[in-house]
Amino acid sequence: MVDKIELKSRWGSLQNLMQQSGVAGMLVSSNINILYCAGRIVSGYVFIPAQGDAQLFVRRPVGIEGAIYIRKFEDLAQYLPSEVLNGKVMMELDSASYSEVARFKGLFTGEVVNGSAALRTVRSIKSEYELSLVRKSAERHMAAYRTIPLIFKPGMTDIELSMVLEHEFRREGSLGIFRIAGSSMEIFAGSILAGDNADVPSPYDFAMGGGGADVSLPVGANGTVIEGNMSVMVDLGGNFTGYMTDMTRTFHVGYIGEKAHHAHQTSIAICRAVEAVAKEGVAASDLYNIAYDMAKEAYLEENFMGYSQKAAFVGHGVGMEINELPVLAPRSRDILKSGMVFALEPKFVIPGVGAVGVENTYIVEVDGVERVTLSDEQMLKLN
Amino acid sequence: MVDKIELKSRWGSLQNLMQQSGVAGMLVSSNINILYCAGRIVSGYVFIPAQGDAQLFVRRPVGIEGAIYIRKFEDLAQYLPSEVLNGKVMMELDSASYSEVARFKGLFTGEVVNGSAALRTVRSIKSEYELSLVRKSAERHMAAYRTIPLIFKPGMTDIELSMVLEHEFRREGSLGIFRIAGSSMEIFAGSILAGDNADVPSPYDFAMGGGGADVSLPVGANGTVIEGNMSVMVDLGGNFTGYMTDMTRTFHVGYIGEKAHHAHQTSIAICRAVEAVAKEGVAASDLYNIAYDMAKEAYLEENFMGYSQKAAFVGHGVGMEINELPVLAPRSRDILKSGMVFALEPKFVIPGVGAVGVENTYIVEVDGVERVTLSDEQMLKLN
Repeated sequence: MVDKIELKSRWGSLQNLMQQSGVAGMLVSSNINILYCAGRIVSGYVFIPAQGDAQLFVRRPVGIEGAIYIRKFEDLAQYLPSEVLNGKVMMELDSASYSEVARFKGLFTGEVVNGSAALRTVRSIKSEYELSLVRKSAERHMAAYRTIPLIFKPGMTDIELSMVLEHEFRREGSLGIFRIAGSSMEIFAGSILAGDNADVPSPYDFAMGGGGADVSLPVGANGTVIEGNMSVMVDLGGNFTGYMTDMTRTFHVGYIGEKAHHAHQTSIAICRAVEAVAKEGVAASDLYNIAYDMAKEAYLEENFMGYSQKAAFVGHGVGMEINELPVLAPRSRDILKSGMVFALEPKFVIPGVGAVGVENTYIVEVDGVERVTLSDEQMLKLN
Repeated sequence: MVDKIELKSRWGSLQNLMQQSGVAGMLVSSNINILYCAGRIVSGYVFIPAQGDAQLFVRRPVGIEGAIYIRKFEDLAQYLPSEVLNGKVMMELDSASYSEVARFKGLFTGEVVNGSAALRTVRSIKSEYELSLVRKSAERHMAAYRTIPLIFKPGMTDIELSMVLEHEFRREGSLGIFRIAGSSMEIFAGSILAGDNADVPSPYDFAMGGGGADVSLPVGANGTVIEGNMSVMVDLGGNFTGYMTDMTRTFHVGYIGEKAHHAHQTSIAICRAVEAVAKEGVAASDLYNIAYDMAKEAYLEENFMGYSQKAAFVGHGVGMEINELPVLAPRSRDILKSGMVFALEPKFVIPGVGAVGVENTYIVEVDGVERVTLSDEQMLKLN
């Protein structure tokens, strides 16, 4: 459980941003941000005033010390100070539903402004405590990945390999749940892409696609039998502590040709090049450009980040959710700061072979980055 | 894949409701309702006019025949007729974010009204095709549950039992993902509640609670060792086809006393009593009252639907999401209609023992209900 000092520091970071925009307080309503601001999930709200301690308002569960119990949100009116009810209040307008915010607007006679970006910004800088959970997730993630060559059996489908590996994740303590900010992306466990399924475009904004097992979840493994000559890209998310790590490793069966091996080595080389320059103060867009330029120099531009359909980024922040700040994309304005955690995933889709490349998770420091996903990056042959 | 006749029927049901409220069209934006209205998930929108065929607007994936490709939502303006842009339009205001709807309001000069309830209402009546997927999920759900007594090993924790059973679910074809309407509830796979963990209150609005494995997901199994004298309630959701079934079965180890067995038999008796009266035209609240009255007559009122914290319902619709209409609660206004699918879960928490009871999924017919979850309801002793 997060201690009070840590919580006060989180409130403080938000309060700095609130004070800059003349906001009287923030009403936090999403589970993930209630967890961040209160150290626990409740059905209810966290109210953070521009100065002073946050207050938890709770419908469920019973029995939380220090919480104010409410039956409906209108009950907040009797507890919030008038400068809040009549002033400028931040809410999570990017995640709260229109209906929910509209009801709140009846309660607040002042202005309701969007606090989603402030929360994203503050959450992008992880504390030492949070980083310790990231490192712990990485350790277990690596332990689970170590089993991949052992659990693979000839004739397995990508889905079968995934379900056995998912079980290894659970044995290592995976919480199973995979949190994604926003409602447009969905996934279960992560994705294993075998052969040309890697080139099937998906509606979701992940780095890679895949047809998926069912029309109701069109991403990732689609039942391809892993045989003949093909690559097998394994990208299962590691959530062992509430903080995720993101790591991709690629394997192959049979003979997949020079180009695929060249692309895989290029992905590893991009990681090394980015590691050499990434540190506090560096622009996330510069990291994208390094990756893109290296792909181009390797004559792999048309394979970079997809073939039939391309992802517009090469990396993303990770934390309690898989898509946090910073975004490593050409037009990103994010600047790396110490304490940020990001995944870098320079990947290539080679028609007739599949997807190759690696993904690693990094912690940003003042003078460099710490790679926390240390599994062997070479493309092992399965069996 | 859903065929065009089925899709037209879904549009037709929505169009009836639109015409009743003088709406010119509905812009569907959530993944789940895009899947319902277009038969596939896209990054984009489905526009359903008050009359005629729906149109798919797509950002991703590439290559969908008949779709209009857009880069940003403002591009819709050039494709939507003026009676829509200047008229009354339905959007999913209960799920779309405030920010998203606010941007749309800039596009529509007319009125934007809430279409979430219309979609919930239409989706609550399943077609024969959808019911076939429900029945298929139930078959596989039952097959997975059959393994429970076989996979249990003395000394296992509730989490260990869950992860082995999850693997059996995957082997039976579970898609893994567990969809819940709204953003307030989260869960992974479902819950196994052993002993007094069943009485730990959760923030989520599920029938039962449980402390969970981590502060970031406070529901269900918490690492309790299954030994001594306790009940073990297994409630994993079955999503094998995109349509879910909900089924709970309870087991026990050791001696759990008369009261727990009495409560379990009461749960089964409630199912039989509800089955005897449920049919098209019956009020969902009447079904709740039957359950509540029987619990009271059995002197189990204080244990009914929780002990330290109680759920306010005894059942709920299921389909693509786990919490659809109808709601079986005292103040529900829902009336059963043929084609509805609901789960009934009269459960009891006995302090010192744990949770007991069963949950079944039913299809509503004109003159009765069809139970699709047919696994043995008696409380088996494990080992």
